[in-house]
Amino acid sequence: MKPSLIFWYEFASAYSWLAVERIEALAAQTGIHVVWRPFLLGPIFAGQGWTNSPFNLFPAKGRNMWRDMERHCASMGLPPIVRPNPFPQNSLLAARVATALPEAVRPPFSRAVFRAQFVKGRSISDRAVLAMILSDIGEAPADALAAAEDAETKRALRQATDEAQSLGIYGAPSFTTESDELFWGNDRLEQAIAWAKNENIMQTEARKVAER
Amino acid sequence: MKPSLIFWYEFASAYSWLAVERIEALAAQTGIHVVWRPFLLGPIFAGQGWTNSPFNLFPAKGRNMWRDMERHCASMGLPPIVRPNPFPQNSLLAARVATALPEAVRPPFSRAVFRAQFVKGRSISDRAVLAMILSDIGEAPADALAAAEDAETKRALRQATDEAQSLGIYGAPSFTTESDELFWGNDRLEQAIAWAKNENIMQTEARKVAER
Repeated sequence: MKPSLIFWYEFASAYSWLAVERIEALAAQTGIHVVWRPFLLGPIFAGQGWTNSPFNLFPAKGRNMWRDMERHCASMGLPPIVRPNPFPQNSLLAARVATALPEAVRPPFSRAVFRAQFVKGRSISDRAVLAMILSDIGEAPADALAAAEDAETKRALRQATDEAQSLGIYGAPSFTTESDELFWGNDRLEQAIAWAKNENIMQTEARKVAER
Repeated sequence: MKPSLIFWYEFASAYSWLAVERIEALAAQTGIHVVWRPFLLGPIFAGQGWTNSPFNLFPAKGRNMWRDMERHCASMGLPPIVRPNPFPQNSLLAARVATALPEAVRPPFSRAVFRAQFVKGRSISDRAVLAMILSDIGEAPADALAAAEDAETKRALRQATDEAQSLGIYGAPSFTTESDELFWGNDRLEQAIAWAKNENIMQTEARKVAER
């Protein structure tokens, strides 16, 4: 069986965008299946006493983050970053839409939401912005936006956030392997993928030994 | 002239240790001169309202940091990390000794202090521990420890910390280039070195054009 890696991302997070742009190509090279799981950082930040992004609470950290993002966009060949206004954006509706969508459509939808936000400076809490993106990727906007407001969808997103927190996640993006090994940050993507692959190889070997 | 990179490190910082183990080899490969500048994070943290390390203030962040360090030590071929007790260590005396030492001796002294702390679990605020390290690297312990307490040394360390803060530094390790481009974290070491080199090449070219 193909090893899998859970990709935990938050739509308002700049570094989640970088991982979104990189993860599928890296995973394909390594033969890893990526499970895209949007979650909300807000409730997790609130749990440690933050009512805002650490990049706003700590101005020096924020200044470095935006400069670091500019350098990353340049080196990755991405368009220059536009700072969302306000930052962070309210990501609740985008996360609910992504949660309600079929798994196969989450990557293109998510990438388009991040680009609308960080390249075009659009408001991702705006239903019209999300409707346009849904239409562009071939999903019926009215159906997807209605499904986003289902009690079942809201419950599933709350559960994803609870599960993230119980796995020890406190920032985005994060990655967890089948044995719940946790990696935090776009900088750890390569390491997380290598770990998921090695873990899978070791499990396969262990099964072979057990079956002898 | 050889391009230079300022290496800002804090003796109590685990990720500073990783940079200490890597920086000289990477800089040598690229032809960069590294200026080792110890500073204190405590006053900078206090300025943003923290009276402790963020790795203690935010337990999930701390758990991930120690696990991340274990993985890094394994992948870098370093001995397994020992968690200093208490963490963070009081790094004032070690930083003063490093500040007072001749520049050429700072790298071996610093590396030995980090290893005493993170490999052997020694207390780096202990004068006897620092004396042993000084003796091992061929420095007279009594002289170096006396110089560490000079008013001039104390002033120089305070100035390094003030300068770090005015450059926008809020964590360790950090790296700044000749044009004050700031990079934060062991993960950015390669990028900082490449930037220092390119910046230098561009300056040299600009001088050539100006001299024509």
